Amino acid sequence: MAELTNSWIKQIKVPAPSLKDNTADAERFKKAVKDTLGEQLIDIDIYLLAKLPELIRKNNLILRCIFFKDHNKWHLAGITGRDTDTAAGLAVDLGTTTVVLRLLNLFDGRTLAEHSFSNPQISIGPDILTRIHFAEKENGLISLKHLIVTGINSVIDKLCKSCKIMPSDIYLISVAGNTSMTHLLLGLNPYYLIREPYIPVINRPGCQNARELGIKANESAKVFIFPNTGSYFGGDLMAGILYSGIRHSENTSILVDVGTNAEVVLGNNNWLIACAGAAGPALEGGVTKMGMLAGPGVIDRISYDHRTQSFNIHTIEDLPPLGICGSGLIDLAAALFLSGMIDIRGKFVPGACKNRLVDKDGIKRFVAVFAKDSATGYDLTIGQADLDSLIRSKAAMYTILETIASYVGISLSELFTFYVAGAFGSLIDVRSAITIGMLPDLPESTYKPIGNSSLEGASMILKDCKLIDEIDTIRNSITYVELNVNQDFMNRFSAARFIPHTDLSLFPSVHF
Amino acid sequence: MAELTNSWIKQIKVPAPSLKDNTADAERFKKAVKDTLGEQLIDIDIYLLAKLPELIRKNNLILRCIFFKDHNKWHLAGITGRDTDTAAGLAVDLGTTTVVLRLLNLFDGRTLAEHSFSNPQISIGPDILTRIHFAEKENGLISLKHLIVTGINSVIDKLCKSCKIMPSDIYLISVAGNTSMTHLLLGLNPYYLIREPYIPVINRPGCQNARELGIKANESAKVFIFPNTGSYFGGDLMAGILYSGIRHSENTSILVDVGTNAEVVLGNNNWLIACAGAAGPALEGGVTKMGMLAGPGVIDRISYDHRTQSFNIHTIEDLPPLGICGSGLIDLAAALFLSGMIDIRGKFVPGACKNRLVDKDGIKRFVAVFAKDSATGYDLTIGQADLDSLIRSKAAMYTILETIASYVGISLSELFTFYVAGAFGSLIDVRSAITIGMLPDLPESTYKPIGNSSLEGASMILKDCKLIDEIDTIRNSITYVELNVNQDFMNRFSAARFIPHTDLSLFPSVHF
Repeated sequence: MAELTNSWIKQIKVPAPSLKDNTADAERFKKAVKDTLGEQLIDIDIYLLAKLPELIRKNNLILRCIFFKDHNKWHLAGITGRDTDTAAGLAVDLGTTTVVLRLLNLFDGRTLAEHSFSNPQISIGPDILTRIHFAEKENGLISLKHLIVTGINSVIDKLCKSCKIMPSDIYLISVAGNTSMTHLLLGLNPYYLIREPYIPVINRPGCQNARELGIKANESAKVFIFPNTGSYFGGDLMAGILYSGIRHSENTSILVDVGTNAEVVLGNNNWLIACAGAAGPALEGGVTKMGMLAGPGVIDRISYDHRTQSFNIHTIEDLPPLGICGSGLIDLAAALFLSGMIDIRGKFVPGACKNRLVDKDGIKRFVAVFAKDSATGYDLTIGQADLDSLIRSKAAMYTILETIASYVGISLSELFTFYVAGAFGSLIDVRSAITIGMLPDLPESTYKPIGNSSLEGASMILKDCKLIDEIDTIRNSITYVELNVNQDFMNRFSAARFIPHTDLSLFPSVHF
Repeated sequence: MAELTNSWIKQIKVPAPSLKDNTADAERFKKAVKDTLGEQLIDIDIYLLAKLPELIRKNNLILRCIFFKDHNKWHLAGITGRDTDTAAGLAVDLGTTTVVLRLLNLFDGRTLAEHSFSNPQISIGPDILTRIHFAEKENGLISLKHLIVTGINSVIDKLCKSCKIMPSDIYLISVAGNTSMTHLLLGLNPYYLIREPYIPVINRPGCQNARELGIKANESAKVFIFPNTGSYFGGDLMAGILYSGIRHSENTSILVDVGTNAEVVLGNNNWLIACAGAAGPALEGGVTKMGMLAGPGVIDRISYDHRTQSFNIHTIEDLPPLGICGSGLIDLAAALFLSGMIDIRGKFVPGACKNRLVDKDGIKRFVAVFAKDSATGYDLTIGQADLDSLIRSKAAMYTILETIASYVGISLSELFTFYVAGAFGSLIDVRSAITIGMLPDLPESTYKPIGNSSLEGASMILKDCKLIDEIDTIRNSITYVELNVNQDFMNRFSAARFIPHTDLSLFPSVHF
């Protein structure tokens, strides 16, 4: 693999000392850095300083240095010899539920290893609010910080072993997480984050020292923490915006990330507008909580074959079906609607459902998979309540999209690209989501699933030193809009509670 | 005592957060700092960051902050509540032989406590060269650093106890030491300092973190290390120049510090020229090593009463005389010369010495105190060799002064003020030193003993935040001149080996 063009690793040629110029090693080095970067180095820490004289002399004045930068300040994260090529970076997607670590080579950008694990703070509470309250207790904050740092460190060990490097070979770390998780990692109390007027301890933590955070890496390693604009708009989204490239086009695009919250950014190279989170009770529990979690044997795709009047079912790893996950549920709802088995309100139509509508303990349920075909030996069914919940969620999602678009006076149909991040983006069938009116009726090619955009954004800044300034630009461009559940919002929400929508002209491609 | 005008402690009023401005605490604080200082704060460390939200709220938005600065970068060393007035600074004179610590109140500048102790590295070697060689051994550097840091920490404990404060109440520390000692304190190997082309690891260490150096103070305390211009011109001299005020007059003055080396700075508000150190074998062992160390019972002053033909002897603490120290020896030589008991070559004149010249083991010695008056029960004597050594030292001193003055084309008689730092300055009698030709024949009022100028300079910057920029100015103004022991120097040295000098016109006030 070719060396990166804008690598953080730069070759620095230190001028030789002489009797005529007895300037100290540190000052000659700093001058050489200035001549190379065109900018002043903010500091050489005491650990690197102690090693500098031997490094300069053993490498005949030519050093490979690893830099990092925040807010126009250049930091020195490490110095390696001329011929060393073991310098790793670590990108961290710091999720409330799942944490993903990716180790990469800072010379060529190649991914060395990657591992995803459950956030160990789940032992305190699965949701962030429980953890924030726990942080108020004595030693609560310390325990939470310890849990996440220990978790990260043990995975760092694992990753390093798997590719035969040492944790001390890690020089740069970038962390994209929501505001609360970022606070907990830094050991900052998120107490005021959840209390009016919702104030973070810090918006732009910039580069921190890995050793001070307790993260297992080189003793001079720097940790760049993606900034936030407040409690509800965190570094994970900043990384996602960076990765999407939404800011590089004059055409207005949208980025949607449905994780614990639904987070939406709309914008172009001139402006960015964002909203997130508490969009009313319907989205609490959100689309990711519908059905069961994706896993082997779980139905993730369903389509209806009108000719044979049967469902084509796909399960993960092609095992006998065990249950149904969110994306399968959206497919199922779309199929039921297109076949007339549910009406525009999402209610079962008994005449169309025929023998698939059965009575379980006095409640009507729809059989997606009959007992003979299921892995459980029982019918796999969904009830009216499951459908109602899905419809509330899809209505909330559509309402949020409509509201933010109307806020800047554009129509959803004008969107140039619709980036869908996260598991939501990679799992759902866009056609089904359009059919039930969860996503707007745009050509399917407009939709672009972008996977774990936090992790990708965090990786990007390790590979391209020119990108780091863009993060501040992104942060400063964002207008954050609090979505008020006002009459306007409620009207839109009510209209979106039909399949696909009360206003059918918004969904011309959906024929039923 | 009144509050200091240019204290490092500043009151910062943080703007209140609101729903309309949910900027994080750290960013609101930084903005308030910028508005107050007129300059950007370089950083808030993770420890202060963690405490910031509660400090802001408990103090109703008004904080007392302790800053420090280096090379135009402002650092935050601590935040106290509105009503706290326990904020201490620690000035350190880091000598090769003696270390002096002064604790002072950062609000009013008052000295709280002071303690002087032997540098614990003396256990490795009394001279710096032995220590530098020891640093090359395995763990040598670590041991040396440990010795000095442990020594400082135990005195910090002592000082704090004596004035009922905690080490965590110390926020600012300033250290003035020679280049080698500074390196050892920082854990930097002085290996290349003593090898051509004599390169320090760092010239301007600026502000370091006390916790990283292992110094017992507040966890966010900053340590300002005075800069050096090379191996032979260290931070102790920078502090001395600052304290002398030599740079504030258009008249040319001189500053002489005789410690382990003789160090000389000549200059005015336009330029500074300096030389130091290895001025040839005569000054090795230097004036401070003449006779015995000053202490109770030691003769520190002698004058000759022509009328009674006897010596007036003063001992430290007025005890019976035990021996003679450097200043006493200079006085004695001057008295012997003025009374004709030694000639212009410093040789005993038997006819004038009379019964005071005795034979001890075949060597002629001069009796300064007869056995009946001494504390030892023996005659206190000096031999010709002692006198010869003194004359070599005084000749070297005068030659250094002459050489540096001639370097900039001025005569010693033009000097406006002659600052004499250290024990040398406070102990010797200027009149005697002029009489023997050690110091130039200037009016006695020209001479100004300034005591421990390193310690005073280190204290000054803790009390006046406007002075710190001057240190860089001083460092950048200095032209360091290597004193080559060439023919010119040797000619001057030979001429100065007479009392007071071969050229008597240089010493018009000395009548004999």
